[in-house]
Order: sequence, then C-alpha cells, then structure tokens
Amino acid sequence: MPVVKYEDIERTEVLMEGVKDITVAKVIGQPQGWPDHSLRVFQIAPGGFTPHHQHDWEHVNYVVSGKGTVTIGDETFEVKEKDSAFVPPNTMHQFRNPFDAPFEFICIVPNKGA
Amino acid sequence: MPVVKYEDIERTEVLMEGVKDITVAKVIGQPQGWPDHSLRVFQIAPGGFTPHHQHDWEHVNYVVSGKGTVTIGDETFEVKEKDSAFVPPNTMHQFRNPFDAPFEFICIVPNKGA
Repeated sequence: MPVVKYEDIERTEVLMEGVKDITVAKVIGQPQGWPDHSLRVFQIAPGGFTPHHQHDWEHVNYVVSGKGTVTIGDETFEVKEKDSAFVPPNTMHQFRNPFDAPFEFICIVPNKGA
Repeated sequence: MPVVKYEDIERTEVLMEGVKDITVAKVIGQPQGWPDHSLRVFQIAPGGFTPHHQHDWEHVNYVVSGKGTVTIGDETFEVKEKDSAFVPPNTMHQFRNPFDAPFEFICIVPNKGA
C-alpha cells in the first residue's frame, strides 16, 4: 500500500534509557520500499523528552503539530508546527516538550539509525 | 542555522513542462548538511498539478496541509493532512489539487532527483 493514512499508523511506546513519555510510528521505510532511510513520527507528551545523546548519523526533522524545543550542540531552539531542523551526526541533541499539548514531529534517519 | 522556521522558507514557482500552479521551497538538503537527500515543501494551488511522469528515483511524501490526490501507477488516492505516500522509482505518478484550499506536502528525494 503506497499510501499510509494518518489514522492508521501504529504508535508504540519508546522504551529506551533517558526517554520520557514518547511514542513512535514507523511510517515510511524498507517495508514500504524506501531502501536507505526511514520516516518516523514521534509524539512527545507534555513533560516528555528524548535522551540527551549523540550518534554518528543525522536527523532530519519536521514538526507536524504542537511545539517543543530541540537542543543541538549547545543551542536550544523552540520549534512549532511546520518548522524544520537538521541535527548533524556526532552532535549532542535532545527534544523536549515543556508545553501543554503533544509535540509531534517527523524524524528521518538513514537505516543504520532506524 | 540548524532550524528552519516555516515563515522563513523561500518559495519559488515551479517552471517545468506539465506543471500548473505550484511553488517549491527547498527546506533541508546539502546546504543544511544532509549529504544525500533533500526535503522540499511543495504547494499546489486549487486546480494545479504536477506532471504525470516517472523517473528512476523514489518520492517520500507527507501531507502538511490541505488535501489532494496522488496517482501512483494506475491507482489514485485521496490524501489529506498528515497522510504519507511512497512513490517507487520508475512508476508513473502525479499530484493534483482538485479542491478549494492549497495542497501542501513534503517531498523527499535522493540528490539525483533534487
């Protein structure tokens, strides 16, 4: 099926050290035919966050709804619906939701980070 | 600048045979540090469309706002805000906006298609 309807995506809780109140849905990746990357949709509940960590692949992000913050290196940016971010490889980063509504964003990674 | 605010993206008209009433904004790509792919945001005005064509790279799509149709091979799907689509390489495809509001979507391509 080449089209994935938003209401059909399956969210699973992210169970990883340093994570609080996040779900992920794997939307487009190898099962759909994308050979080398994966598009996931993360949702961070109010008060939730991703680990403050780094790895040797990049993130390409696009905010679907709500707002939150993204720390990249030693800078923290507030991002909202329709803003984008690029997290370079080997750069400390963290997403946080200090607001009252869910913060939902796309995160695209190469297969080694999926 | 690792964050691109939606209000700052620069839209340019798509001038290509078979295109009607489309703008594109190149949001994340080589200038931002993504080595091998590019994330563009297209906006199709009501009545507009992309060419009905094919090429040897894939499209990864995510609808930002509005709704429209995507034809992939011999099937046509209606897609709306937050739906996704995958257009395989070497497959005839076309995006159309038969509705009354702008149809805005992300289109990710490998560099050879950017």
